[in-house]
Amino acid sequence: MYQLLEQADTPDGLKQIAVSDLPRLAEQMRQFIIETVAGRTGGHLGSGLGTVELTIALHYYYDLLERDSVVYDVGHQCYPHKLLTGRRAQFGTLRQYHGISGFPDPKESPYDRVKTGHGGTSLSTALGIAVANKQQGFTDRTAIAVIGDGALQEGQALEALNHGGDMRDLKYLIVLNDNEHGIGPATGALANYFSKFRTSQAYTSAKKDIKKMLKLLDEQAGSFGRAVHDVLDHVKAGLHGLMPATHPGVLFEELGYFYYGPIDGHDIPTLLEAFENAARVPKPVVLHVMTKKGKGFNNDEPDHYAYHAAKTHSKLTAHLPKEFKRAGGPAYTDVFIDKTFEMMEKDPKVVAITAAMLQGTGLEKVQQKHPERVIDVGMAEQHAVGFAQGLKLGGLKPICAVYSTFMQRSVDQLFQELALIKCPVLMALDRAGLVGPDGATHNGVFDIAYISMLPNTVLMAPRDATELKNMMDFGLELSLPAAVRFPRAQSPKQELPAGPALELGKAEILVEGDDGVVIAYGSMVYHALEAIELIQERHGKRLTLVNARFAKPFDEALFARLIERHDHVFTVEEHVRRGGFGSIVLEFANRARLESGKIEVLAIDDRFVDHGARVEVLQEVGLDPAGIAASIERRMGIRKPGSETGSTRNVATGSSVSG
Amino acid sequence: MYQLLEQADTPDGLKQIAVSDLPRLAEQMRQFIIETVAGRTGGHLGSGLGTVELTIALHYYYDLLERDSVVYDVGHQCYPHKLLTGRRAQFGTLRQYHGISGFPDPKESPYDRVKTGHGGTSLSTALGIAVANKQQGFTDRTAIAVIGDGALQEGQALEALNHGGDMRDLKYLIVLNDNEHGIGPATGALANYFSKFRTSQAYTSAKKDIKKMLKLLDEQAGSFGRAVHDVLDHVKAGLHGLMPATHPGVLFEELGYFYYGPIDGHDIPTLLEAFENAARVPKPVVLHVMTKKGKGFNNDEPDHYAYHAAKTHSKLTAHLPKEFKRAGGPAYTDVFIDKTFEMMEKDPKVVAITAAMLQGTGLEKVQQKHPERVIDVGMAEQHAVGFAQGLKLGGLKPICAVYSTFMQRSVDQLFQELALIKCPVLMALDRAGLVGPDGATHNGVFDIAYISMLPNTVLMAPRDATELKNMMDFGLELSLPAAVRFPRAQSPKQELPAGPALELGKAEILVEGDDGVVIAYGSMVYHALEAIELIQERHGKRLTLVNARFAKPFDEALFARLIERHDHVFTVEEHVRRGGFGSIVLEFANRARLESGKIEVLAIDDRFVDHGARVEVLQEVGLDPAGIAASIERRMGIRKPGSETGSTRNVATGSSVSG
Repeated sequence: MYQLLEQADTPDGLKQIAVSDLPRLAEQMRQFIIETVAGRTGGHLGSGLGTVELTIALHYYYDLLERDSVVYDVGHQCYPHKLLTGRRAQFGTLRQYHGISGFPDPKESPYDRVKTGHGGTSLSTALGIAVANKQQGFTDRTAIAVIGDGALQEGQALEALNHGGDMRDLKYLIVLNDNEHGIGPATGALANYFSKFRTSQAYTSAKKDIKKMLKLLDEQAGSFGRAVHDVLDHVKAGLHGLMPATHPGVLFEELGYFYYGPIDGHDIPTLLEAFENAARVPKPVVLHVMTKKGKGFNNDEPDHYAYHAAKTHSKLTAHLPKEFKRAGGPAYTDVFIDKTFEMMEKDPKVVAITAAMLQGTGLEKVQQKHPERVIDVGMAEQHAVGFAQGLKLGGLKPICAVYSTFMQRSVDQLFQELALIKCPVLMALDRAGLVGPDGATHNGVFDIAYISMLPNTVLMAPRDATELKNMMDFGLELSLPAAVRFPRAQSPKQELPAGPALELGKAEILVEGDDGVVIAYGSMVYHALEAIELIQERHGKRLTLVNARFAKPFDEALFARLIERHDHVFTVEEHVRRGGFGSIVLEFANRARLESGKIEVLAIDDRFVDHGARVEVLQEVGLDPAGIAASIERRMGIRKPGSETGSTRNVATGSSVSG
Repeated sequence: MYQLLEQADTPDGLKQIAVSDLPRLAEQMRQFIIETVAGRTGGHLGSGLGTVELTIALHYYYDLLERDSVVYDVGHQCYPHKLLTGRRAQFGTLRQYHGISGFPDPKESPYDRVKTGHGGTSLSTALGIAVANKQQGFTDRTAIAVIGDGALQEGQALEALNHGGDMRDLKYLIVLNDNEHGIGPATGALANYFSKFRTSQAYTSAKKDIKKMLKLLDEQAGSFGRAVHDVLDHVKAGLHGLMPATHPGVLFEELGYFYYGPIDGHDIPTLLEAFENAARVPKPVVLHVMTKKGKGFNNDEPDHYAYHAAKTHSKLTAHLPKEFKRAGGPAYTDVFIDKTFEMMEKDPKVVAITAAMLQGTGLEKVQQKHPERVIDVGMAEQHAVGFAQGLKLGGLKPICAVYSTFMQRSVDQLFQELALIKCPVLMALDRAGLVGPDGATHNGVFDIAYISMLPNTVLMAPRDATELKNMMDFGLELSLPAAVRFPRAQSPKQELPAGPALELGKAEILVEGDDGVVIAYGSMVYHALEAIELIQERHGKRLTLVNARFAKPFDEALFARLIERHDHVFTVEEHVRRGGFGSIVLEFANRARLESGKIEVLAIDDRFVDHGARVEVLQEVGLDPAGIAASIERRMGIRKPGSETGSTRNVATGSSVSG
């Protein structure tokens, strides 16, 4: 059934296949991907299906191991590439714990030059490779970037587009994979621009007509006077200008690129011909290919975004334990959405901004009711924060919803646009913590560090759905920029009773006990609760549990009292140890001259955490309830021998960097 | 002499002046700025001189206090704006300690909507204000961004340009201040694009000719056959397309903007007319104005970059003490340059990248010898790091030289492009620490926090010129991404003898003593040396001094030994306390179960530090030698009463955030 696909397990095998058989290979590949991803593993189905023929053509024409190189922007369109580069057999482990990644990864294959996941980076990388090739005299090497129309809106991609247009004598090919959709509906002028040309094929006939016209004008020129003759020269000089205005390449041509297209991205011979032509051009080339995201998955018009990331088949995770016993409440994302909707209904000044995460953040649901007040700026996180600043200065109350990992793009805007002038924008950092199947590029485990370093910022994290809602109300009325972080997870089903109303920098005591104290931040509160219950059950020890609520400013008075009173103080957070919540507590204890030796910080060690189910990676880093309990027991000297099997975490590991 | 200027102290006063007198006002203003900045205070002279007429026209036409708003991109062109908004009297204190800032600042004036200094942000801010105006029905309010052609290359600006082109029914005016120069020679396709039109004025005549041609063609149409008639329709439809190709607005028009210009930015009546016309357009407008940076300063062709930031007149700082006794060696920037040059001579694979900081980093000197191997990517910090990754993957050895404060733009690229795949690029972070006159937007006091949070990174800082050179050699050969930070300061003149060769994560003991230990990082080593010498002089106490060399990985074994042996341990760094070097040491001490109560972290408290001479701001934050000595004496209980006058620093201040 997959005979050609098996033959194409490597590019060498692929190159043995006749061009006329490649469409059949494409069919087999498409079938295999659908069967595996939709049927079993889950993953970014649509992007990969759209690039089947393109990827086959790239590997057929180029030598992407030694001579040439390809960088897939964002990377979730890399499934066909993985199949052609020796990873077919492992494809069923896609995005699973210890399986292959859903993104390119140099650890997996030398064909993967980089690891991606965040968008808009491929042009810079490929341009760098192209310039390095040129400077070293490798004139036969081509550096290729494959970028979607959505990712092209990223500031970095536009910066690179600007830089590259300036270059000459460079083998640098940008394949613009125009599938009409990034990870959400396309936004902005570029999107309009492309769609203008997508809807009509007028440009091809216009092109022919203009050539015809020029020929006619030339013939007639003799009959005109001198002035008209001059004018005709202008017309001819303007041919270049006239044609761009009737085809989508004008922007690229004006920037100095050789533009080729648009061509059918599912037509392999046409693609091969285009590569051949591009190879003859001594300057950077933009090859515009039209593809259909999700091609082959459904004959009806599918819901593009619903299968951007197909849901993991439930059988795959059925054997896994619940993340924590009280889990099962609504996803935090849904809570965020309901609350945003409620806030908008109540206050006409509330607006929500996101950066191509309409579906991921759930804001598309709110947008249906308030189309003007939910603003998707496209894949443009820097602008999202600056734009939110402007909205606030203009008198509105903006909520900026961006995944924790993507907010890394906006550190400088958090600095200058918000913190520096104390501009109160509320940031909703979704997917803060370990995201699970998307892995290292998508884990949101640095936000406490990169925001808390900035003066004038407020950081908070809710223990459950009720508190998330309260924090959104609270954060929106602050006079400082504030961030609320919440995980890609279900909220607790059985919530603890509501505590005292939120007060800036004040924590909440949830459980009182004399044998130690656990200060948990956000997503770790119920995990820690379960951990101290386990400990009480096993050892009869009763620990105090504090819901920190705030990481900045934090409850100095309460923390000081607790550190003074207790022999054992634990902080728990879903974030790297370096610069995180525990680090803040340690800095405070030191400054306040408290005995910080009592404190143990439970956090993620200094390494990147790969993909897997969320519960699996939480276990791996020791932040599941059992892992937290084990760390506490070890420190308190009450861990029973032989009980180590439940947790493999080594708390005392130091810096993992080595030269 | 400055009669009109005095009358124009506020926009209300300005509006009393007749249009015909405005050119005289411009002359007075230009004279006043030159006299003050070039003659006394120092500052960004060229940018302000270029926008004198533009600023007068803006304040003359608009109401920039209540109704309308203007955001100056980067902000160093704001001097005329400051003069027109009540800050003439304080203008002589520009960029001085406790004087007015060299950038817009809402703390100074309600006319300053934001504080800027980093470029490419104005379009986002103004677009946000415009959308807020629209949503609230403020149909008479215009939001204006004034952006230079250099800053327009920033990813954030391009993101905003894309987003804004999509909008309609919006009073949003982008004034493109085309002065042919950002803070360095313009780079990239956009720069080429603009310069193409700058060099010739062909577009105006072409425009006329085309209109003429169309009229003639219409007249002649009857004599052609049907096919030609169709063709002529295409020509007319293409008029829009033809014109853009002969004028610089095509890019903006293709993105959905109404483009107007280019016009003479020094001609006030023309500017006023342009504003009037722009006001009638119901979509975002790009008004392209041509200005001459530094206009009026020198009749000869001046060196644009040399007076981008005019040197502070030496009389202003003559009364200030030296930053530290042994100061007086070459500036770190010069050391960096000489070393880069040497490395390039030795190894053909070495290349240097910067982002519009050719002059600031000194790389322009190296570029003269190696034009192909010093690559300025323009104001595009994100791309700079991604591009450096590509160069490395392509086989070269890139040094990426970007100011510490601007590297905040690239946090996500440091994460994905470098740390995640252990891509060894050497980052040279110039101006790390307190920069002095440029103030809060330019202080590089967050880099330890935002880099150390990332796994697989190496952080180092040299104690002097010799060590900077050694670290560059060392860093370039590492198998991990590495950053070396150095201040905008002179290196020590009398260097301590060279210590042991660099070894990853190993520190160096400079002075041995039994009464305590000071672990200093980078720029603070000689300051700390002077501090312990002061203490020995005053009290006979001898402290050990350690040059940490590395913040990540760091010398765990040595630090553990020192913390065990000494009763007093001080860390000193030119960085915020939160997440900085001292924070790293505290985290380590806690993890290694060392007595961290002995440790005191000397660093910058949780607030933004304003402008002043570097020595003044170092004093303010207690990081001058006397301040360091005072902190140590206080902690050791040997501070003499009455000696507090030398330092006003309160070590025990907690978090300064308040809601």
